[in-house]
Amino acid sequence: MAGAEIEALIRQLAKLPGLGPRSARRIALALIKRRESMLDPLVRALTGAADTVKICSACGNYDSQDPCAICSDPRRDAKMICVVEDVADIWALERTAAYRGRYHVTGGLLSPLDGIGPSDLKIEKVVKRVSDDGVTEVILALAATVEGQTTAHYIAERLKPTGVAVSGLAHGVPVGGELDYLDDGTISAALKARRPV
Amino acid sequence: MAGAEIEALIRQLAKLPGLGPRSARRIALALIKRRESMLDPLVRALTGAADTVKICSACGNYDSQDPCAICSDPRRDAKMICVVEDVADIWALERTAAYRGRYHVTGGLLSPLDGIGPSDLKIEKVVKRVSDDGVTEVILALAATVEGQTTAHYIAERLKPTGVAVSGLAHGVPVGGELDYLDDGTISAALKARRPV
Repeated sequence: MAGAEIEALIRQLAKLPGLGPRSARRIALALIKRRESMLDPLVRALTGAADTVKICSACGNYDSQDPCAICSDPRRDAKMICVVEDVADIWALERTAAYRGRYHVTGGLLSPLDGIGPSDLKIEKVVKRVSDDGVTEVILALAATVEGQTTAHYIAERLKPTGVAVSGLAHGVPVGGELDYLDDGTISAALKARRPV
Repeated sequence: MAGAEIEALIRQLAKLPGLGPRSARRIALALIKRRESMLDPLVRALTGAADTVKICSACGNYDSQDPCAICSDPRRDAKMICVVEDVADIWALERTAAYRGRYHVTGGLLSPLDGIGPSDLKIEKVVKRVSDDGVTEVILALAATVEGQTTAHYIAERLKPTGVAVSGLAHGVPVGGELDYLDDGTISAALKARRPV
């Protein structure tokens, strides 16, 4: 159809999450058309990220520096760790600006069916951080799925000997959510955790 | 939030057609995570396309060679030109394998409201190709919109002195389409152009 290089570009773009062959073709064409304003800056951004981004050796976050900007920020509470599955979750929590402690990325969730056990995740490291750094509170901000809650329970059990306070995110009605559109499990959880107004 | 290089990458990705900040973040994270299998090959594909892809001086198609593979294929009918708005339309028509002539890309459609006149498009060039190359048939495969049909009429008028046969794509029920979901204009067009079974 198109030249070999265009086909190779479309194939690579179609591998990106959320993109299929149709959107990959559309993006490839836009990139080729706007070489100076789109393709060249994208190549620079990609190589820039590939050259500088590293994994924070303390928490597992991605940043241009190690330890990452969050771990090396003295204004952030080093006695508080929020455990998340993925770097995307750090970004989501940071956008809220509601949390001023540090993070720990597990790199996944326990899933016996997929053969993912505790040794595949960075769980021992959070236990070590809690004992070594005198952490006083751990927030388990993991998905409200079976895997997420299993992982949360496992981490809470492992943290018990340290005596640290462990909490999980509240379940309930999403802000802006209408009851009519919510699933039964969420409504039950919100009812159980009802609070005085 | 994330490092400057990650932010720059997300910004560039969000500029691509069909991507917003959320999908750009997701793609950036996937690229950083899978550097060897995704980021590096994508950079190679992008630079490969940037280095080799050119515009065919005959028809306006994108290819690694000039004239493009279609224009230089001796098995394709040089006496037939299909006029399209964009290279994406060439790709769409080529996927059908139903057309064996050559193409001509106008690079846009006439749109007085947006200040796009005949001189902004490659229309004179198709008239020149028809007279110079002894073309016997021109198919106007332009969008079934006001701009597309205006452009088609304009090109047909300009081609009249050459005596070439000019046709447009048929309007009708899309293959696999149900009448219930079609707009009135399409049903009227399909009725008017009804054919003996």
